[in-house]
Amino acid sequence: MVMSSEKTSSQRVASAASFDLKAYLAERQPMVESFLDLSLPHQYPETIYGSMRYSLLAGGKRLRPILCIAACELLGGSIANAMPTACALEMFHTMSLIHDDLPAMDNDDVRRGKPTNHKVYGDAIAILAGDGLLAYAFEYVVSKTQDVAIDRILEVIRILGRAMGDLVLGQVVDLESEGNPDISMETLTYIHNHKTSALLEASVLSGGILGGASEGDRARLLTYSKNIGLAFQIIDDILDITATSEELGKSAGKDLTSEKATYPKLWGIEESRRQANELVSEAKAAIVSYGDRALPLMAIADYITARKN
Amino acid sequence: MVMSSEKTSSQRVASAASFDLKAYLAERQPMVESFLDLSLPHQYPETIYGSMRYSLLAGGKRLRPILCIAACELLGGSIANAMPTACALEMFHTMSLIHDDLPAMDNDDVRRGKPTNHKVYGDAIAILAGDGLLAYAFEYVVSKTQDVAIDRILEVIRILGRAMGDLVLGQVVDLESEGNPDISMETLTYIHNHKTSALLEASVLSGGILGGASEGDRARLLTYSKNIGLAFQIIDDILDITATSEELGKSAGKDLTSEKATYPKLWGIEESRRQANELVSEAKAAIVSYGDRALPLMAIADYITARKN
Repeated sequence: MVMSSEKTSSQRVASAASFDLKAYLAERQPMVESFLDLSLPHQYPETIYGSMRYSLLAGGKRLRPILCIAACELLGGSIANAMPTACALEMFHTMSLIHDDLPAMDNDDVRRGKPTNHKVYGDAIAILAGDGLLAYAFEYVVSKTQDVAIDRILEVIRILGRAMGDLVLGQVVDLESEGNPDISMETLTYIHNHKTSALLEASVLSGGILGGASEGDRARLLTYSKNIGLAFQIIDDILDITATSEELGKSAGKDLTSEKATYPKLWGIEESRRQANELVSEAKAAIVSYGDRALPLMAIADYITARKN
Repeated sequence: MVMSSEKTSSQRVASAASFDLKAYLAERQPMVESFLDLSLPHQYPETIYGSMRYSLLAGGKRLRPILCIAACELLGGSIANAMPTACALEMFHTMSLIHDDLPAMDNDDVRRGKPTNHKVYGDAIAILAGDGLLAYAFEYVVSKTQDVAIDRILEVIRILGRAMGDLVLGQVVDLESEGNPDISMETLTYIHNHKTSALLEASVLSGGILGGASEGDRARLLTYSKNIGLAFQIIDDILDITATSEELGKSAGKDLTSEKATYPKLWGIEESRRQANELVSEAKAAIVSYGDRALPLMAIADYITARKN
């Protein structure tokens, strides 16, 4: 796809819709899957490797790895530069799901249409699988990243550590807010900024840094990722109400019955959807200056509001 | 303390006994405590920071930080070079204790003479406190380490990630071996190499690397640390039988009642103590060539077999 440089910004933003995201994801998702499959060995003690692999390879959109790679390529880096970090991001995401699903936390039995990790392996192994993925992800980035300056790798480690810390903070406030129907907008935003946006931001930012981002690039990628992070969470909340359990691959409607704070409860569904669309527009505007190279990230932003699960 | 260069190796080893370890630890332990205290803020959400601080600042020997700093100084590095990594090692150690104590794992109510983390904060927060300490430790090393070449910091991150992964593997095999009275020597060694030695080794090795270790230095530090790691675990097993709960600050005799595999059960107490003493001698011999600068590490090795808790 070639774009004329005379096109205006709004024409560029509009043309993101013509980017074939379906074909792009159909190429990228299996590529990420195959690296994830190779990232964790089958070895003694089999229980824990089996447990980590069970959740890491249970499917999912692989959105974080794909964002990381796309941001790296946006700035002229290669898929190979970003792949170890991309896999580490999915390890982090997976570990947070395993721990969130535990009986001591959200007590979920189904995830991505399959029994949750602790339902298969028991609580102890599920806790340790999460710990193992978290620790291993850091080692993996350091030992596998090639052809990237070490100051960039070190900065990626710092960003990943911070994002995982944020995930923990978000989950804490989420747990503490459960059963409280009068949760403030401020608290809800805190939860989502930490629990969801932080890792999406880290995905985009770490990819950008591996690709050689300047300060200006970092600022633009941060605006992009902050906006899609919040839009993502708003849509998640809407889907929890409107989609079926089959579509989601997890229990639907759980947020409503658990008195969990959500955007639709605060704003209603229609206003929530409008807010999400606006955030996506702002995300796309932040990276429009990169021209054609921004098309994948723009199409992914659109996909976030259009998705059905 | 000045040693004549004409002394033989065995004289040097013997003279480690005259090093005033008590005064050394009386200086180093509060120094480490004060940096640990500063490492974690009091901030929102208070529950999780309170929970992390509760366990991180619950006392303990601070053996891992002290080993890290001593190894760094052995090779000409400074206390400041090693301190962020030293604190991170204590965060890792603390997180492993918090998770090991959970009802789903060893189900311990008392640790260092105080109620365990989950007894005070509940299982969910205890799990998240462990996750938070693990993630934060990596960020902390990257953002706080100063005046050390970045390739060394990156290597330290790799070593820390590997050691934390090993801790998880050791705990898995430990859990799987519980209730099995016929556990093999090989399995017992695997558990201790991963669950105890790995982090002690990482403490010494990371300190050495921050201090500028050559390949030869690394090999010597590895021999030292592997030996003290195993000796440490043997003495732990002996103390579980011979010490009182008051001395240990945790439930004594638990290994015997839980049918957990231990060295004293395999070898008897006397042979176990002989093996530990031999390992300590080998550890000291590995670093004797560093002369006076090795005195702290030698004295710490002696302390491991002499300790009462």
